Amino acid sequence: MERIMMAHGSGGRLSHELISTLFQKYLGNSYLDQMNDATVLPGQAQIAVTTDSFVISPLFFRGGNIGKLAVCGTVNDLAVSGAIPQFLTLALILEEGFPLEKLERIIQSIAGTVSHAGVKIVCGDTKVVERGSADQIFINTTGIGYRMERLVGPAQIQPGDEILITGTIGDHGIAILSEREGLEFQTPVVSDCAPLNGLIDAFYQPGVKCMRDPTRGGVATTLNELAQQAGVSMLLEEVNLPVLPSVEGACAMLGLEPLYLANEGKALVIVSPSAAEEVLKKMKNHPLGRYAARIGKVQAENSGRVLLETPLGGKRILGMLEGEHLPRIC
Amino acid sequence: MERIMMAHGSGGRLSHELISTLFQKYLGNSYLDQMNDATVLPGQAQIAVTTDSFVISPLFFRGGNIGKLAVCGTVNDLAVSGAIPQFLTLALILEEGFPLEKLERIIQSIAGTVSHAGVKIVCGDTKVVERGSADQIFINTTGIGYRMERLVGPAQIQPGDEILITGTIGDHGIAILSEREGLEFQTPVVSDCAPLNGLIDAFYQPGVKCMRDPTRGGVATTLNELAQQAGVSMLLEEVNLPVLPSVEGACAMLGLEPLYLANEGKALVIVSPSAAEEVLKKMKNHPLGRYAARIGKVQAENSGRVLLETPLGGKRILGMLEGEHLPRIC
Repeated sequence: MERIMMAHGSGGRLSHELISTLFQKYLGNSYLDQMNDATVLPGQAQIAVTTDSFVISPLFFRGGNIGKLAVCGTVNDLAVSGAIPQFLTLALILEEGFPLEKLERIIQSIAGTVSHAGVKIVCGDTKVVERGSADQIFINTTGIGYRMERLVGPAQIQPGDEILITGTIGDHGIAILSEREGLEFQTPVVSDCAPLNGLIDAFYQPGVKCMRDPTRGGVATTLNELAQQAGVSMLLEEVNLPVLPSVEGACAMLGLEPLYLANEGKALVIVSPSAAEEVLKKMKNHPLGRYAARIGKVQAENSGRVLLETPLGGKRILGMLEGEHLPRIC
Repeated sequence: MERIMMAHGSGGRLSHELISTLFQKYLGNSYLDQMNDATVLPGQAQIAVTTDSFVISPLFFRGGNIGKLAVCGTVNDLAVSGAIPQFLTLALILEEGFPLEKLERIIQSIAGTVSHAGVKIVCGDTKVVERGSADQIFINTTGIGYRMERLVGPAQIQPGDEILITGTIGDHGIAILSEREGLEFQTPVVSDCAPLNGLIDAFYQPGVKCMRDPTRGGVATTLNELAQQAGVSMLLEEVNLPVLPSVEGACAMLGLEPLYLANEGKALVIVSPSAAEEVLKKMKNHPLGRYAARIGKVQAENSGRVLLETPLGGKRILGMLEGEHLPRIC
C-alpha cells in the first residue's frame, strides 16, 4: 500500500504529482487550475471570511470524516454569519506514512461535500512532517463568502426574542465518543455533520436576528457567548430541548450533558417573536430541519447569563464549558 | 511555567481567555474584534487568495521564527501574484504542554510582522492536541489581497525576457539547517525571512511580467514550474548567481546546491529586456534588494527546461527537486 513520504511535502516533483493525481483530479475547477502562488477570484464590496483547523480523532466516523467536516465547519461559519459561502482554501498537514488510500477517500469526500454545498476549493497547500510529529492528518479550511442583505449578529438581539434550534442536540459529540470508546448503542448515533447553507437559505427572512452553529462547547457555551455579547440573558426550557433518545441514554450513562456536546450540522437561531412561528415552520419543511424546535427566550434580567428551566420549574445557571471532556471533537 | 492545556482548545472558558489575553491583546483591530463566526471585510471586484501551513523546525532561528515566517510566506505569495496583501487569517494547532511563554513570543512576532507588512489578522482558530500528537505548534495563514493593474503571470513570459532575483540564494535553507544540526560558521547565516510587498511596490513597473518567491524546492524548482507553465526554457548563468560566501561554503561542505535551497524573502522576477536595467536599479535601491542580480534569460528552445551555464561555458539541466533534503523548512 502506498504511503505519504516526506518528499510529498518537498515542493518538488512528488508534491507536483500529488497535486495533479489527487487534488486537481477530484477538486479541479477554473480557479484551482490557475496554479499560481495566489488565486484570483471574483469578489464583492463586502466579503465574509472565516478559518478553522480540524484535528478530529478518529478520522472516519458514522456520518462523516475529517474531510467532510472540514468543509461543513467552514461553510457553516459563513452561513450563520449571514453570508453565502463561495470559496474554500484547503491546507493539509500529513504525517509521514499516512496511507494514500485514506487520503484519497478524504479528498473524495471533500469533493462531494463542496459540490453539495455549492462552494469551490480555490487553492491549497500540503506539508508533511515526520512519523510521530503529527497524528495522521490535520486540515485547515478558510472560507470566503459573499454578503447578503442579512443583518444578523448579536447586536440585533433583544429581550423577548425567541431561541430556535434547527434540530437535535449533541449527536456529533456522542457519535465521536462512541466511535472512540467502541460503545455500541441499539440505535447507533450518527454525526449531524452537514452544510447548513441550504437550510438557512430556506428559512431566512426578516426577523431572523442572529445565528450561530454550536460546535465545540455546545449549545450552552455558544449561548453564553451570545448573552455576553448582546447584554441579555437566555432562558432555556429543558422540556423543549430536542435530544435523540440514544444521545440522552449515552449522556446519562457517561455523565455528560447534551447542552455541552458539539454539533456539526445545527444552527441556533434568535428570531423576533412575530417571525418565530413562520421561521420554525420553514425549518421543519427542510430535510435538515425536521426536528427544529423553539427552546427558549431572550430576557433582559440576569444579563450575560444562560439559565435552564427544569420541568419542575426550577432554574439553574449554565456556564461556559469548563475543562475539556471530549478533546479533538472537530 | 504555564503551559497549554487541552482545555485551551475546548471552545469553552479557557479558549476565551486565550483569545482575550493573547490574540486580542497583541493582534486586535476592528475586524478581529467583531468576534463573530465569520469576519466582514471590505472587498473588491477581484480578490487574490492564498493559503499556507507552517511546520518549520526549529521554531526559533536566526532571522525569525515560525510566527514571522507564517506572515511573510503568505504576504509574499500575494505580493508576487501582483496583489496588495490586506488581510490574514491565523489558525494554530498546539501540542498540549507547549509553553505559553513561547506562544506569546510567537504572537508578538506575528504582531510586529503584520504591522511591518501593513496587513491585519482578521480571524483565527486554535486547536489543541494531546502531547505527542503534534510537534509543538503548526500555523496556517490564509491571505487575501486586493488586485492591482499588475498583469503578471507565466502567460506573460516570452523568449528574450530577463530573469532577475532580488537577492542572495539559499540563506533560509542554510540558516535552518545550521540551527538544526548545530553547525557554526565564522559568519552565521541568517534567514532572509521578510515580507516582500514593500520591495515589490518599489520596483514594479510595466515590463515586469512574472514574479514568484522561490521557497520550498528553491530557485531551480520554481523556474521549472514557470518554464513548464510558460512553454519556454530558462538559461541561468552560474557566474551571476548571488550566493553568500558562508552559504556557498556550507553547501560545498554538506553537498547541497544553493539553487535547491529554500528562500523566504526573495522574489524571482521575469522582466522584458527593455525594462530589466531600470527594474534592477530600483531593486538595488531598496534595503531588501541590495544584492539583486540578473541571473539568466528566457529562451524558446528546450521548452519546459531549466539549464545552468557553468563558468566554462558548459550547460547542464536543472530538474525539479527530487526527494527531500531538508524537511520542515517552512
